Amino acid sequence: MTLKIALIQTNSLVGNITTNFNLIVETVTAVRNRSDIDLIVFPELMLVGYPPEDLLLRRDFILTANNALFELANIAPDVGIVVGFPEFDGKNLYNSAAVLSEGCISAVYRKQKLPNYGVFDEVRYFTAGEKPCVFEFKGQFIGLSICEDVWHSDIVQATKDAGAEILLTLNASPFHVGKAQQREALICSHAKTAQLPIVYVNAVGGQDELVFDGASFVTNAEGKIVFRAEEFVEQISIVEFENGQPLKQIPQPPSKRGLSFAPPFQKGGWEGFALIYKALVRGTSDYVRKNGFKGAILGLSGGIDSALVLAIAVDALGAKNVEAVSLPSKYTLEMSNDDAKIQAEIMGVKYHSIPIEPAVKAFTGMLAATFENTPADTTEENIQARCRGVVLMAMSNKQGKLLLTTGNKSEMSVGYATLYGDMCGGFAPIKDVPKLLVYELARYRNSLSQVIPERVLTRAPSAELSPNQQDSDSLPSYEILDPILARYIEENQSADEIVAAGFSPEDVKRVISLVDRSEYKRRQSAVGIRISERAFGRDRRYPITSGYRGI
Amino acid sequence: MTLKIALIQTNSLVGNITTNFNLIVETVTAVRNRSDIDLIVFPELMLVGYPPEDLLLRRDFILTANNALFELANIAPDVGIVVGFPEFDGKNLYNSAAVLSEGCISAVYRKQKLPNYGVFDEVRYFTAGEKPCVFEFKGQFIGLSICEDVWHSDIVQATKDAGAEILLTLNASPFHVGKAQQREALICSHAKTAQLPIVYVNAVGGQDELVFDGASFVTNAEGKIVFRAEEFVEQISIVEFENGQPLKQIPQPPSKRGLSFAPPFQKGGWEGFALIYKALVRGTSDYVRKNGFKGAILGLSGGIDSALVLAIAVDALGAKNVEAVSLPSKYTLEMSNDDAKIQAEIMGVKYHSIPIEPAVKAFTGMLAATFENTPADTTEENIQARCRGVVLMAMSNKQGKLLLTTGNKSEMSVGYATLYGDMCGGFAPIKDVPKLLVYELARYRNSLSQVIPERVLTRAPSAELSPNQQDSDSLPSYEILDPILARYIEENQSADEIVAAGFSPEDVKRVISLVDRSEYKRRQSAVGIRISERAFGRDRRYPITSGYRGI
Repeated sequence: MTLKIALIQTNSLVGNITTNFNLIVETVTAVRNRSDIDLIVFPELMLVGYPPEDLLLRRDFILTANNALFELANIAPDVGIVVGFPEFDGKNLYNSAAVLSEGCISAVYRKQKLPNYGVFDEVRYFTAGEKPCVFEFKGQFIGLSICEDVWHSDIVQATKDAGAEILLTLNASPFHVGKAQQREALICSHAKTAQLPIVYVNAVGGQDELVFDGASFVTNAEGKIVFRAEEFVEQISIVEFENGQPLKQIPQPPSKRGLSFAPPFQKGGWEGFALIYKALVRGTSDYVRKNGFKGAILGLSGGIDSALVLAIAVDALGAKNVEAVSLPSKYTLEMSNDDAKIQAEIMGVKYHSIPIEPAVKAFTGMLAATFENTPADTTEENIQARCRGVVLMAMSNKQGKLLLTTGNKSEMSVGYATLYGDMCGGFAPIKDVPKLLVYELARYRNSLSQVIPERVLTRAPSAELSPNQQDSDSLPSYEILDPILARYIEENQSADEIVAAGFSPEDVKRVISLVDRSEYKRRQSAVGIRISERAFGRDRRYPITSGYRGI
Repeated sequence: MTLKIALIQTNSLVGNITTNFNLIVETVTAVRNRSDIDLIVFPELMLVGYPPEDLLLRRDFILTANNALFELANIAPDVGIVVGFPEFDGKNLYNSAAVLSEGCISAVYRKQKLPNYGVFDEVRYFTAGEKPCVFEFKGQFIGLSICEDVWHSDIVQATKDAGAEILLTLNASPFHVGKAQQREALICSHAKTAQLPIVYVNAVGGQDELVFDGASFVTNAEGKIVFRAEEFVEQISIVEFENGQPLKQIPQPPSKRGLSFAPPFQKGGWEGFALIYKALVRGTSDYVRKNGFKGAILGLSGGIDSALVLAIAVDALGAKNVEAVSLPSKYTLEMSNDDAKIQAEIMGVKYHSIPIEPAVKAFTGMLAATFENTPADTTEENIQARCRGVVLMAMSNKQGKLLLTTGNKSEMSVGYATLYGDMCGGFAPIKDVPKLLVYELARYRNSLSQVIPERVLTRAPSAELSPNQQDSDSLPSYEILDPILARYIEENQSADEIVAAGFSPEDVKRVISLVDRSEYKRRQSAVGIRISERAFGRDRRYPITSGYRGI
């Protein structure tokens, strides 16, 4: 007895049921045209995209989704389609998966484990299902589960006990560093324990701060992975089962919507950085495309952050859709201007240089009376950063191009950024990338082809807002800062614990105090791509008004 | 048998356990010095403030709170203290209330109903309790409940069935228009059904976008309110029970931390507006005070929004702590400058006038080459708004004064505001106030004393960013806009439903489309005070990247 299952690793558009409906129809048609197939499996909440957030509270939205599901039942009655949708039973809403076959909805499974931690808020919307769902299809008994469910061995076992011979799991499981390994290890172990093959279908693509990595896979009953799809690429994969065991992967039809990077990615030692870089490219490209921008612009300072963001933007959007703007002040070193220009030329993007002195002078004059007899402080530095923001936003507004903001996670953490200045922008590609990792990613990208001038990688980092300024004037070195931040923010360690790990009490105190005081800036910052287990945004929800002092 | 219960309607500081601990100690001391008292009841999560958000995920924070609770048990062993705290049992976290008496923790109740909708995320942090808690105290059986619990009649009944003669409920119940009436009606009906007197103690004060209204009350077993505390004021109230029935209110000691407004509030017809106005004043004053600012500044345009915000700021902080800045451009009418100046003089605040032309000209020159041969559009309007933002932020930075941003809910809804321009600022007092209500509140405030020039109330609203511009050039009149917005945003109605209610399909389409497209602006906006059932912020969580089109 054989069964051919298509894993549809696809990129839905949150909120647009028509687009997603059409994507399902096109995909089903494409799969059937290329291969005889039995079951076609889409990701979690495919019909509405993930996460739809408070759109789920709209009656019109839910009714449209339910109507679309009924229509879908008729598009290919001779195959089985498994698709995620929000199910309303007249009283409660469920995160459900429907099996469509022979023109009907032949089975519905309701997600039992609703994640409500980290970036997830599913209890806000959904009621938990209470039982497994196993359906018979062409002589095989197939169980269903949705994302979080399959992280729990009891759910896997209960589905097996209910008679499942194969478990399909529909997912919208967002990326963070190490997630795929964690996911595969756990799910393989559950497959092995229950002696149940698992077909894991994940979404792919960027949605605001989340990026789904795909990396769908199939395990056999021994918990061994027999097939794994690519990361960050839309992909249709077909796996054949014989008597309930996955046989081998059938060569997959080429993806219609695959990403292609200009440079091919090197395998091997760089694999970890490659994966993060792919996540950033995918997240940036989807944000720009899904929000209908005509391209992107960014301020290119000659520093490492904007250099990396330019590389990401070009790899995501193509050189012709990216503009770089240098905005020198009297504190900008000549080498910064040179390096910005060199990179723009290497990458083939349109390049502007607009000195900000006229605006800075105008503001200085306008504020002269008010600021009389006050010493210069960060106010004057912020004015420069804000003049740059005004110019960049004007260029963004005039052309309908998205302004990318280039701040990294270390800066976001300690508030080393000017609100309405360098923080201007609609999207922050490296917001969750700590400074030391920025350097690694830049080196990784240069290993594919040299796009960032070497001097940008080696010179001391500076905001260039006052004479001879260096980051290390106001902050500990990044070799000290980044590990403290990781412990305080991502691992929720206390000051005592961080000091016990070998950092000086002075550094720990200084860093934690900066983090605690900067929440107001982060709250008004652009969304950016989450790559860590605790990104700023949905993931770390701190009060602005807070008497908490980590030290 | 008599029992004297003190209701402590108090304003804790989220995250600062030391401050809250000291406030509890001071309050207990003050109450005992002034009256013989049996039980002293504080609000929900008093020890850590509400809502502490992700601070609850920090082990150091929870341990500090638990240690503080043990210390509290010893401060007044001869009275009973009931206080809300986060309880960690080594595995799970609970939203709990402890009874402290005779030097011990003599009872602990765990909240059973955890709200996870609207502004609430309690399932993210807490495990639900599973049973009522009734303790004996001086011969009376007293039940405990926490906030959401008492909105459920089954919890009230179960506590009665467990033997309670009086039910104490600890709350951090945030204000919105109509909330107090809704709360009292429901809880009184539950008291009546269960024949159980309820002592309702609510928090008071502002915390980011939330403002707690206090309005604590006591019902008898017939569900009649026998005592009600004031709104938006810290207050200690004492109610005496005899044989389980509330007798009468004992005159309360004067509040140490009460707000006092310069003008006394008129009772009567204006009551609804008065309450909202108090909420805005309280929210603003607490944000400034709790975040340690030296005062506030704002741009005063001569329009109604900034006029109302100036009045709120002065009533919240006192005239000497507020500065108003007029930032005229060549499109600013003379009457706008005049009216701004007149109001600043009436209210006695420091006033500056800084024309923005020099900066606008500088940017125009800097962008001339780039913008050659492009027609003027909103880009040039935005540059003006952003020049104002740069000046105001410079003044804010230099003096350590909070910049208040003056946008109203109608603008926030349709995106009629410039990101990094007039949206600059750390706090948005009227962010949740629709334009028509802005006028009502201004008239209400003028009824106390005329502070806003009459012409500001009567002239047509204009952003003054282009010649003879009026809001009605780009938007439907507010008489049409505001009701459509209320239906779409607060009531989640569909376009069809709104049209069916009598609005033109063109207006509905235009408005909804503006709302849908403006999420990116709102995401970078300042927090502001929630007064409606669905404010922008924690309350309405929409994706930025969204294919949903309400029409």
